[in-house]
Amino acid sequence: MLASIEALLGWDERTMLPPAAAEYRAEQVAGLSGLIHERRTAPEVGHWLEQLSSGDWAEQASEDERATVRELRRQYQRQVRLPQSLVEELARTSVQGQQVWVEARRTNDFARFRPLLERTLRLKREQAEALGYEECLYDALLEDYEPGARTSQVARILGALRDELRPLVAGLAESAGRPRKEILARSFPVAAQEAFSREAAAAIGFDFQRGRLDVTAHPFCTRLGPDDCRITTRYNERAFAEAFFGTLHESGHGIYEQGLRTDQFGLPPGSAASLGVHESQSRMWENLVGRSRGFWQYFYPAAQRHFPAALSDVSLDEFVFCINGVEPSLIRIEADEATYNLHIIIRFELEQELLNDTLRVGDLPAAWNAKYEANLGIRPADDAHGVLQDIHWSAGLFGYFATYSLGNLFAAQLFEAAERDLGKLEEQFAAGRFDPLREWLTERVYRRGHCLPASQLMESVIGRPISHQQLISHLRRKLGPLYGI
Amino acid sequence: MLASIEALLGWDERTMLPPAAAEYRAEQVAGLSGLIHERRTAPEVGHWLEQLSSGDWAEQASEDERATVRELRRQYQRQVRLPQSLVEELARTSVQGQQVWVEARRTNDFARFRPLLERTLRLKREQAEALGYEECLYDALLEDYEPGARTSQVARILGALRDELRPLVAGLAESAGRPRKEILARSFPVAAQEAFSREAAAAIGFDFQRGRLDVTAHPFCTRLGPDDCRITTRYNERAFAEAFFGTLHESGHGIYEQGLRTDQFGLPPGSAASLGVHESQSRMWENLVGRSRGFWQYFYPAAQRHFPAALSDVSLDEFVFCINGVEPSLIRIEADEATYNLHIIIRFELEQELLNDTLRVGDLPAAWNAKYEANLGIRPADDAHGVLQDIHWSAGLFGYFATYSLGNLFAAQLFEAAERDLGKLEEQFAAGRFDPLREWLTERVYRRGHCLPASQLMESVIGRPISHQQLISHLRRKLGPLYGI
Repeated sequence: MLASIEALLGWDERTMLPPAAAEYRAEQVAGLSGLIHERRTAPEVGHWLEQLSSGDWAEQASEDERATVRELRRQYQRQVRLPQSLVEELARTSVQGQQVWVEARRTNDFARFRPLLERTLRLKREQAEALGYEECLYDALLEDYEPGARTSQVARILGALRDELRPLVAGLAESAGRPRKEILARSFPVAAQEAFSREAAAAIGFDFQRGRLDVTAHPFCTRLGPDDCRITTRYNERAFAEAFFGTLHESGHGIYEQGLRTDQFGLPPGSAASLGVHESQSRMWENLVGRSRGFWQYFYPAAQRHFPAALSDVSLDEFVFCINGVEPSLIRIEADEATYNLHIIIRFELEQELLNDTLRVGDLPAAWNAKYEANLGIRPADDAHGVLQDIHWSAGLFGYFATYSLGNLFAAQLFEAAERDLGKLEEQFAAGRFDPLREWLTERVYRRGHCLPASQLMESVIGRPISHQQLISHLRRKLGPLYGI
Repeated sequence: MLASIEALLGWDERTMLPPAAAEYRAEQVAGLSGLIHERRTAPEVGHWLEQLSSGDWAEQASEDERATVRELRRQYQRQVRLPQSLVEELARTSVQGQQVWVEARRTNDFARFRPLLERTLRLKREQAEALGYEECLYDALLEDYEPGARTSQVARILGALRDELRPLVAGLAESAGRPRKEILARSFPVAAQEAFSREAAAAIGFDFQRGRLDVTAHPFCTRLGPDDCRITTRYNERAFAEAFFGTLHESGHGIYEQGLRTDQFGLPPGSAASLGVHESQSRMWENLVGRSRGFWQYFYPAAQRHFPAALSDVSLDEFVFCINGVEPSLIRIEADEATYNLHIIIRFELEQELLNDTLRVGDLPAAWNAKYEANLGIRPADDAHGVLQDIHWSAGLFGYFATYSLGNLFAAQLFEAAERDLGKLEEQFAAGRFDPLREWLTERVYRRGHCLPASQLMESVIGRPISHQQLISHLRRKLGPLYGI
C-alpha cells in the first residue's frame, strides 16, 4: 500500500507539481521510500519468508501463495543487502536528478547535469557492489528490471539483432520509394489530437473508468491502485505521430497493468513479469497493432474527420507509408521501428562503460555523439537533442534500456504466436476488433503476473527460445512492399 | 511529512481519481491515517513531550519551541484518547462517504446517503465521548476546528448576529432598488473565466510558483508541502460570480497558507491558528476585498475586456450592485454576504440535534426544509439543492460549520483594525495595491501561526473582544447606499 502511495507522489511530481515544490517533494519521496525499505527489510519479514518456504505450509499452499513466497524471498534477499542510507540517498538523488535534468535539457546545458550524474553513478556502483553479481557490475542492476537475465546473454541477442538490422536499414536507404514526410508535420490541432488519441486508446482497450490520460514532458505509465492506472502523453501540433503513437505506447503499458489480477494487487501473481515483458505490450499496441495497415483501415476515416485540413488529400496507403517511414534520427522516442533498436544499443553500451568507469561523465557527450555518427550516420546539433534527451539516467535507471529491445523481440514473437491461434489479426483490426488479441494476451501473459522469470514465461507462451528472427521477419514483411524492395 | 502525503491523497481523490479507484483510495487513506495516528500517539512521544514541558529545557527554549511543545502536547493528549480502530474507521468512512455523497447528490437520492450518515454520526458520538467534554458532546468536536471555543459561547455570538441580520435583510427586501440579476447569468465563456480568475488570484497575492489552481466539484484548498499550496474551483458559463468569487475565496485560504512560515512547516508556529481564522482570510479576500467598489475600479476594465459580450453595456456601478445583491437563496456557497450566516446557523443547529440524537437522520431532509422555510422563507425543490448540497457531513466534519461564521466576524474586525493602521484600503485597491493589506495580515496573523488559541490571537490583533458589530456595520455601510436605504 505504501508503494502505491509512493507511485502517486511520483505521478504528481511529473504531471502537477508547482515549480517551487520540488525540494520538499524529494524529502517526501526519500522519507516514504526509507519507510518502505525499513518495513520490507525488517528481520521478522525474512524470518516469516524462511518459515513459509519450507515445512508443512509450503505443501498445502496454493500455487499463487508459493509463487508469492518464492518471489518475495528473492526480493527480500536483494533488499537486505542495501543499507537504509543508500536507499534513501538513491531516492533523493533520483528526484533531484529529474528536476535538474528538466532544467539542463531546457537550457541545453550538460554541465549543469554532470555533477548529479556523477553522484548517481557513484551510488549505482555502490548499489551493484552491495547487491553482488556473477559476471559483471551491470548484471546486478539488470536484475532489477529483467530478473534472471544476464548481461552477456542480452549482449549476444542484441548483437545478432544489430547484425541483421544494419543491412535491412541500408537496403531501405538505397530504395527509390520515400514517404512524403511533410504530411505528418502539417497542422494537427492539439484538441483534435487529444480527442482522437482518447478514442483510439479506448478502442484498443484502455479503460478510462479505471485510469486517466494526462500531459507531461516525458510520457510514462504508473499504477496507483488495482483500479487506478495513469498514462501520460504530450501533444505537439506539428508532430502528429509523436503524440498518437506515444499514447498508444502508454496505452499498451496501461492495458497490461489493467489486465493484471486485481485480487493479487501488489503481490507477484498480480504484478508485471519484467520491464521487458511490459515493454513488449507497449510496443505490441504501438507498432504491431497501431502501425499496421489493418488498424488504419478501421481508423483512417475517423482520422480524416478529426484532421480534415491535414489529411483530406492523403490516401490510406500514403498515410500508412508515412507512419512506417524508416530514417536514421537523433531522438529515440521518435525513432521508427527499424532504427529504434540501434538507439538502444548505443545506450546499452554507454552505460556499461560509465558504470565500469571506462568512460568518464565529462567525456559522455562526445562519446554519445561519436556513437550516433558510427551507428546512425548522424550527429546531434546539441546535447538537448543528444545525451540529455532521456529521463532514465537522471532517475538512476541504469540497466533499464536493454529491456526496451527485449520488449520489441518479445512483442514480435507474441504476435506470431497469437496469429497461430487466432488467424490473421490485421483482418480483425480492420473490422475494429481488438478484443481477440487483448483477451489472448490477458489469458496467457497478463493474468500470469510475475510467477516465473520473464524469459521462461515468454518461452512458454511463444513455444520457442527468445530470438531476434520474428522481429526481423515482421519488419521485412511490412517494409519490403512499402519501399518496393 | 506523512500528513502532507495524506493531503496529496485527498487532493488527488477530489480532482483526479478515476471513478473505479475510490475503494482502494479509501484503503490507502485509512492505512496511512492509521500509521500517522500510531506514530503521533506512540508512548515515547508523550514521554518526550512531558519531559520537554518542564525542567531545564523549557527555560532555555525559544518561544517557537515552547509554543510547539505546548500545542503538540494538547494535540497528543487528545489523540491518545482515540482508539486506533476508531481513527481508521473514521478515515475509511469519510472517504467512502464522499464518494457516496457525490453519487447521492448527482441522483438526488438522500436514501442512498442515509446509511453512511448514520454510521458517521455513530462514529462521531463515539469520538466525542472518547475525547471528553465539559458542557456538551458538540464541544468535543468543535475543539478540533476552533481550539478553545465553547458551543455555548459560539451560540451566544451567532444568536446576536442573527438578531441583527434579520431586520437588515428584511429592510433590504422592502427597498425599491434591485440589481439586474440577469447580468451575472449572461454567457461568460469558461476559458475567459479561467484566465481572469487566475489574473485576479495572482494580483491579490496567490503565488503560482508555489501553488496550483484546478477544477473540482466542491472547491477547497490544501497544502502538500511548505511551497505547495493547491486551490480548486469550478466554472459554469452562466454563473460568473460562483467561479470568480469562489476562486478569490480559495485564493484567500491559499494566501494564508503561503504566508505561514516555511521553516516551521508542519509545526504549530507554521500552522493555521484555527479554521475560523482560516475562513476569515478566505472571506477577507472574497468579500471585504473582492466585492468592494475599490477592487472593481481596478479590475472592471479587465473584466470588460475578458467578457465583452456580457459586460460592455454594464456600468461599473451597476456591476458592483449586481455582485452585492442580497436575496434569500437555497445554496450556501452562492449566498450573499448578508444572508450567508443564516445558512450557517441552520447547519449549526441541525448538527447539534443530530449529534444529540434529538433529530433522526431519516427526518433530516424534512427538518432541513422546515428550517430553510423559517429562516429564509424558501424551501428547496429537492435534496440535491437542500440537505445534500454540502460535502462536510459526508466527510465527517461535524463541528466545522460554525467556524464559517466566526471567520466572517474575524474578517470584518481585522479589516477595521487594518484600516486604522493603513488608511482607506479601498483607495489602495482602486490603484491595484493589495500588498499593504496582505503584508499587514502576514505580519500580524499569518506569521504568528498557531501559538495562541485563535480567539486570543484575534483579540490581540484587533484590540477588542470578538463581536458581531463590525460585520453588521460593514454590511450597513456597503448595502445601504446600493439599496438606497
